[in-house]
Amino acid sequence: MSRTIVRTRLRKFSAGTFVIREDNLAGEEPLEIRVNGTALATTMRTPGNDIELVHGFLFAEGVIGGRDDVRIARYCDGVDEQGRNTFNVIDVELAAGVADPSSSRRRLVAGNSACGICGSSSIEAIMADSRYPSPTGPLVDPELILRFPDRLQAAQQGFERTGGLHATGLFGSAGELILSREDVGRHNAMDKVIGASLLAGALPLHESVLVTSSRASFELVQKAVLAGCGMLVAVSAPSSLAVDLARKSGLTLIGFTRAENFNLYSGAARVVGA
Amino acid sequence: MSRTIVRTRLRKFSAGTFVIREDNLAGEEPLEIRVNGTALATTMRTPGNDIELVHGFLFAEGVIGGRDDVRIARYCDGVDEQGRNTFNVIDVELAAGVADPSSSRRRLVAGNSACGICGSSSIEAIMADSRYPSPTGPLVDPELILRFPDRLQAAQQGFERTGGLHATGLFGSAGELILSREDVGRHNAMDKVIGASLLAGALPLHESVLVTSSRASFELVQKAVLAGCGMLVAVSAPSSLAVDLARKSGLTLIGFTRAENFNLYSGAARVVGA
Repeated sequence: MSRTIVRTRLRKFSAGTFVIREDNLAGEEPLEIRVNGTALATTMRTPGNDIELVHGFLFAEGVIGGRDDVRIARYCDGVDEQGRNTFNVIDVELAAGVADPSSSRRRLVAGNSACGICGSSSIEAIMADSRYPSPTGPLVDPELILRFPDRLQAAQQGFERTGGLHATGLFGSAGELILSREDVGRHNAMDKVIGASLLAGALPLHESVLVTSSRASFELVQKAVLAGCGMLVAVSAPSSLAVDLARKSGLTLIGFTRAENFNLYSGAARVVGA
Repeated sequence: MSRTIVRTRLRKFSAGTFVIREDNLAGEEPLEIRVNGTALATTMRTPGNDIELVHGFLFAEGVIGGRDDVRIARYCDGVDEQGRNTFNVIDVELAAGVADPSSSRRRLVAGNSACGICGSSSIEAIMADSRYPSPTGPLVDPELILRFPDRLQAAQQGFERTGGLHATGLFGSAGELILSREDVGRHNAMDKVIGASLLAGALPLHESVLVTSSRASFELVQKAVLAGCGMLVAVSAPSSLAVDLARKSGLTLIGFTRAENFNLYSGAARVVGA
C-alpha cells in the first residue's frame, strides 16, 4: 500500500444529495530526525525521499554544509513495540569534526537583547549563515517564467491524484525541469529538492530556478538563499519579510505567476527586459 | 505605518512588457513567546492579535488550559539595542501552580521506543492531551456549509488587499460569523481564533464550526480537536493523518468546500441528510 497517496471513502455532497465516493488523500506521517543519537526535530511530511528531506533540513538548519558532513543517514534499524519498523525515524551520524547540534544548537532567529527580535535581525542571521556568495545568474526570459507553474504541475503526479500536495521544482535557465518533489508541507518539498541537490553535489544552485506551487514565505526564501539559488518563482503571494530577505540577499523573487503575468519583487537584472 | 499590510513597489510583467506598480504585501514578522522568562518558541506571523495568538499557541501546546492559567501576558517592556520596542516579544507569566514548560516540556509527538513514531502514536498523544469530551453538536445544513468559505472571505480584509493571508473563521451552527482572524500562517490564524475564544471563556467550541481558508493538515485538525470543536470545514484538501485524527476523535471534517459541493470525511451525524 502506498504511503504517499492513501485511499479513503467519503461522502460527497453535490447537487443537493450525498453520494459515497472513493478518493485519494495526500499521505502525511511524522518523521523524526535523530542526529548522533539525539532527536533533533519531528516534521509532518509525505513519506518518500526522506533521506533527501533530512539532508535538506539539516542544511537549512546549518547543521551540515555538504554531503561529506554526513557519515551515515538511514532509517532506524530497530522496531517499535509491535515489532514493526515504521520507517518514520531517520538516524543521522555526522562525520568526525562536524559540530553536534544538540551541544551547539544555533537559532536561526535569535533575540539577543531585551526586545531585539525583528525582521531585520532575522534577515541578518540568515545572511550571516549563508555559505555562498550572492549568485550571478541565471538570466531568464519572462515568457519562460510564465510557463514554470504549468511545467511543475505537469510533473506533479500526487497533486493530480489528491489535490493536496505542494511541490518544488528545480529548473535550468533554459526552462528544463531538473527535478521536482512533492509533500503536504511546502517547506518539506523544498527541503527534498535542496537535499537531493546537495546529495548530487549540485550546490550552490547559482544558475538554477526554484519554483514553488505555494506562496513565498520567509522560510521558503530563506531556504532558497541558503542554497545559493538565483531565482525563486512562486505561484502565489510573497510575504513582506520574504521580499525584504530577497532584496537584501540578491535573490530574484517572483510571485503571483499566472498564465499571462507575474510580479517581480527583486533582482530585476536576472530577468530579460526588466 | 501598518505592519499587517505593507506597501511595496514591484515590476509587473503583463502583455509582454514590464510596468512599475505599487502593491500590498501581507506583513510577516517574528514573534518570540517567552514563558516565565525563558524563550519557548518563535513563530513567523502577521502582527496583530498577538495576545490571542500566544494564548492559542500555549493552549495547543498543552501549557495552559484556560485564561486563569496566565497571570500576565504582555509585550516585552524593554527596548532593543537601537532603543526601540519591536513589539515582537511577548512575556507570559504563568499563574501559581501551572507547570513551567521549560522544566516539563511535553512533546506532542513522542517517539518512546526504538522506532515507535507513527501516525497512530501521534493521534494517541493528541487524544491523551484532550481536555474535553467529544463534542455532541452542532447539527448543520449542508447548503449552509457551502456558503462558509464565501462568508469567511467576505470578512477577510487583508486577503482582499494582499492575496497572501490565510484565515480562520468561527461560525455558529446557524451560519453566523462569530469572529475571524488572518495570518500568513494558517496555524497562526487558527491559534488566534482559539486564543480569542479561550480569552472570552468560550472553550470548548462544542457547538461551533471552525472554517479554514486552507488545506486541512494534521496540525489544524489537532488544534480544532483540542479546542473541543465539533466541525472543521476546509476550503481545500485534507491529509491522510488529518482524516485519521478526525475519525478517531469524533470531529466532523469537511474538505474541498466549493460553491456547489464538498467532501465529508468523518462525523456524518452532524450534517443534515448525510
